[in-house]
Amino acid sequence: MENNTLKEIGSQLLSANRILLFPHMQIDGDAYGSAVALCLALRNLGKEVYVLLEDEVPAFLSFLTCDFCLEGEPPFDSADIAIAIDCSDVGRFEKRKDWYFKGNVTICLDHHMTTGVFADFNYIDSSAAATGEIIYDLLKVMNCDFNAEIANALYAAITTDTGNFRYSNTTKRTHLIVADLYDTGLDHTKVCVEIYENVRRERVKLSADALKDMQLFCDGSAGLVSVTQKMLEVNHTSMEETEGIIDTLKSIEGIEIAALLKEKEKEIIKVSLRAKSYGNVANIAQKFHGGGHIKAAGCTIHDSLDNAKKMIIGAIEEELMKGSSI
Amino acid sequence: MENNTLKEIGSQLLSANRILLFPHMQIDGDAYGSAVALCLALRNLGKEVYVLLEDEVPAFLSFLTCDFCLEGEPPFDSADIAIAIDCSDVGRFEKRKDWYFKGNVTICLDHHMTTGVFADFNYIDSSAAATGEIIYDLLKVMNCDFNAEIANALYAAITTDTGNFRYSNTTKRTHLIVADLYDTGLDHTKVCVEIYENVRRERVKLSADALKDMQLFCDGSAGLVSVTQKMLEVNHTSMEETEGIIDTLKSIEGIEIAALLKEKEKEIIKVSLRAKSYGNVANIAQKFHGGGHIKAAGCTIHDSLDNAKKMIIGAIEEELMKGSSI
Repeated sequence: MENNTLKEIGSQLLSANRILLFPHMQIDGDAYGSAVALCLALRNLGKEVYVLLEDEVPAFLSFLTCDFCLEGEPPFDSADIAIAIDCSDVGRFEKRKDWYFKGNVTICLDHHMTTGVFADFNYIDSSAAATGEIIYDLLKVMNCDFNAEIANALYAAITTDTGNFRYSNTTKRTHLIVADLYDTGLDHTKVCVEIYENVRRERVKLSADALKDMQLFCDGSAGLVSVTQKMLEVNHTSMEETEGIIDTLKSIEGIEIAALLKEKEKEIIKVSLRAKSYGNVANIAQKFHGGGHIKAAGCTIHDSLDNAKKMIIGAIEEELMKGSSI
Repeated sequence: MENNTLKEIGSQLLSANRILLFPHMQIDGDAYGSAVALCLALRNLGKEVYVLLEDEVPAFLSFLTCDFCLEGEPPFDSADIAIAIDCSDVGRFEKRKDWYFKGNVTICLDHHMTTGVFADFNYIDSSAAATGEIIYDLLKVMNCDFNAEIANALYAAITTDTGNFRYSNTTKRTHLIVADLYDTGLDHTKVCVEIYENVRRERVKLSADALKDMQLFCDGSAGLVSVTQKMLEVNHTSMEETEGIIDTLKSIEGIEIAALLKEKEKEIIKVSLRAKSYGNVANIAQKFHGGGHIKAAGCTIHDSLDNAKKMIIGAIEEELMKGSSI
């Protein structure tokens, strides 16, 4: 697939009036921050723009206020332009796809590798750490005015998708963009407090509860933590709130492979796997018909939690033994 | 006090041969990263440079290898130049001060407000987020060559002193400097893994142990966690390893003031206090003859842990009540 230029896409936007934005479902910081920034910038140009959502904005992003975010029907029947934001495929906005394809012109802005092209105009740059970086470039090409709200939204997009500048996708360009946002009113302290210091207390307790029983093996080069339905109940949490536990486990000295086993139902165990440096967890996930990347993968095991633990420990041991013989 | 220019300081360094560097005691990422970067850059110019330490380099910084770091006596009796790095006063290198003042020329490079000038040449910039930023500027002024080791050392200095770009001291300049380091071989992923994913497992367990019994009060706008000698013993940890627990507590939604009570001895309770947004914990610390900043302060209470808890909860309640009446 050949990309269009941001100039071509900018021209389309400048000549349009009614624009609908489609960030992906299970909305995250990059999808929401990118959509809000683009919406506000286009609104400043006098366009009639709305962000169409299919789920509630998570609490840690609710400080990014945007009066033009809607759940449900769009306010007009057909848009001049419909833009998919941070959506690698149509499945990422499945419930809203009819409204998207009703757009006279469709655009896709993304930093994920896409499986198939679905839009008229495409700008997909997998070297961008976040779609927020692409939105920044687009607004620059269009000579849009930046302001504090736009800067905060783009910063939210970038900090969340780069693990606050720690992940390997972070580049020189990431830091140059953020440096520039300071000139237009960025309040990074406020954004960081909202995003990183807004954790439900029950979630902190669940994390403590799970980590105190961590199991280390392979001479401390692997670690396993599990979360049962009972632990969720006792701590008044949901399985979604286990996010972050595996990162704390991986942050332990010497741990190369970390595993989190989530008891979804009695014999349905969802397994998340992470590698720190040299490990390959995609290999492990594949053994159980799962998938993912070398450093982050997952699978589901249909067996008891105890058996799933044994299987995963065995597979990790095998993988790490292989590594040590290279 | 009037600063010298970095050009003046650079000229002194260029005309010297034997140079000793003095990072502060209880060495941290900024002091060590800054010293290593300056040492390596001056070595590349053919100078005979050593970093004098008075304590062991912490494990999370040991990846910054420098063959020129020494504990104990310097390798020559009197240096052409002695440089205090990240030391707000002489007390920060008390044990090594005789060697420092034996230098023919003394220099102070720092980003802390200093109480008294102690060096011949001074460059103190409290707007710098880290002394690492000042070292970067100095090396640029001196036209020093950068390389991957220097870039990694400066990144370590900057990421640790800015809470990985989250603290309010982070500026546009911080991000511009980091962006430039990518051009000279920075491997930020490696540095971040070493610094942030190198936590002792016992420490993670201690943290989990302490946090599971957190106490919330003032309608959830304050939180308290305590660590006893018994908890340290059970988890095979030291009191130094409680660092970070208060940040996790503060990260909880709605918590404005966080307190960590550390039972140093039976009736000696060290109290750490943090405020998130509007709270003033310096006020609270002062009530118990402690001190600190508005957002981070501490004090010591000579009473039982239970009584100390009651006193601190009372003082926090009073402070938060005051806030709500403004």
